[in-house]
Amino acid sequence: MQEEKIILGIDPGTSIMGFGLIKKTGSKFEMIMMDVLIMTKINDPYLKLQKIFQKTLAIIDHYHPDEVALEAPFFGKNVQSMLKLGRAQGVAMAAALQRDIPVTEYAPLKIKKSITGRGSASKEQVAAMLMQMLNIKEMPKYLDATDGLATAMCHGLQNGAITSGKGKSSWASFVKNNQDRVG
Amino acid sequence: MQEEKIILGIDPGTSIMGFGLIKKTGSKFEMIMMDVLIMTKINDPYLKLQKIFQKTLAIIDHYHPDEVALEAPFFGKNVQSMLKLGRAQGVAMAAALQRDIPVTEYAPLKIKKSITGRGSASKEQVAAMLMQMLNIKEMPKYLDATDGLATAMCHGLQNGAITSGKGKSSWASFVKNNQDRVG
Repeated sequence: MQEEKIILGIDPGTSIMGFGLIKKTGSKFEMIMMDVLIMTKINDPYLKLQKIFQKTLAIIDHYHPDEVALEAPFFGKNVQSMLKLGRAQGVAMAAALQRDIPVTEYAPLKIKKSITGRGSASKEQVAAMLMQMLNIKEMPKYLDATDGLATAMCHGLQNGAITSGKGKSSWASFVKNNQDRVG
Repeated sequence: MQEEKIILGIDPGTSIMGFGLIKKTGSKFEMIMMDVLIMTKINDPYLKLQKIFQKTLAIIDHYHPDEVALEAPFFGKNVQSMLKLGRAQGVAMAAALQRDIPVTEYAPLKIKKSITGRGSASKEQVAAMLMQMLNIKEMPKYLDATDGLATAMCHGLQNGAITSGKGKSSWASFVKNNQDRVG
């Protein structure tokens, strides 16, 4: 019997958060769902964080992913944006870590490259390629959803050593591999 | 009967995290406990975040604080530090928000000033004043613990309008009130 693995990909943001869930069976991929959490109308930053936590935990408890993949942010934004984004990531991670699910993070460039072959691909190109790969009929309204899905796919496409979660995804190696993004 | 309120103060950090718990009865304060979470020997950043979440949740579930106060970071550090700190704050907040406990944040300067009267006070001066205010006999080994306690005290010393939690503590007003810290 082929190994089956469910991967949750998250594209964290403080306005819209994207989620994509795939099932990997051997080397075959199937989309389970994709979704967005829209927070554009929520002004209270704590309420936003609470929504992120609740939504992430609800998805985890409903679909029981084996692994979580997180799109890591661009560097070079200002410190305030990074603090806000760090908080958003933190609460999403807390939901995964509370359920003892390993978290791996990927730089946006790495995700785009693993899906399209080009790190400079646009969101639309990534979405189009994903639709083809996963046989998705309709483009979602928000591309944050396909960003989440792309993150899950990127994780699923790594070899075993990386998909095991820990180690390679340490902060230190993440920073080391992203020196070009440090502002 | 006088209103009784339990306040948990947290000084988030990625190496050492400080916690202080006080009981406010009318205008009287009493220390319940202070503690630190030491993560200097943990290399895996996810494991650190998991420890922060577990520890914060354990304290909350043991002492049932009514409100949580968080020491907000200095601005002006580099974006990587802010992202890491944001994550640490995020998971601590997630623990509070999961239990529906309101979170209020305070700038370090504001905390020092509310305890000692001077925003430029040293950690030792803050600790010494706290020991006097709360009748603490022994200085703790790590001043991160008194930093957590100072955060709780700062929150307890605010007037009713602020201690209600939401609103005044919004990100927007926080940033507005801390322009001098923006690097």
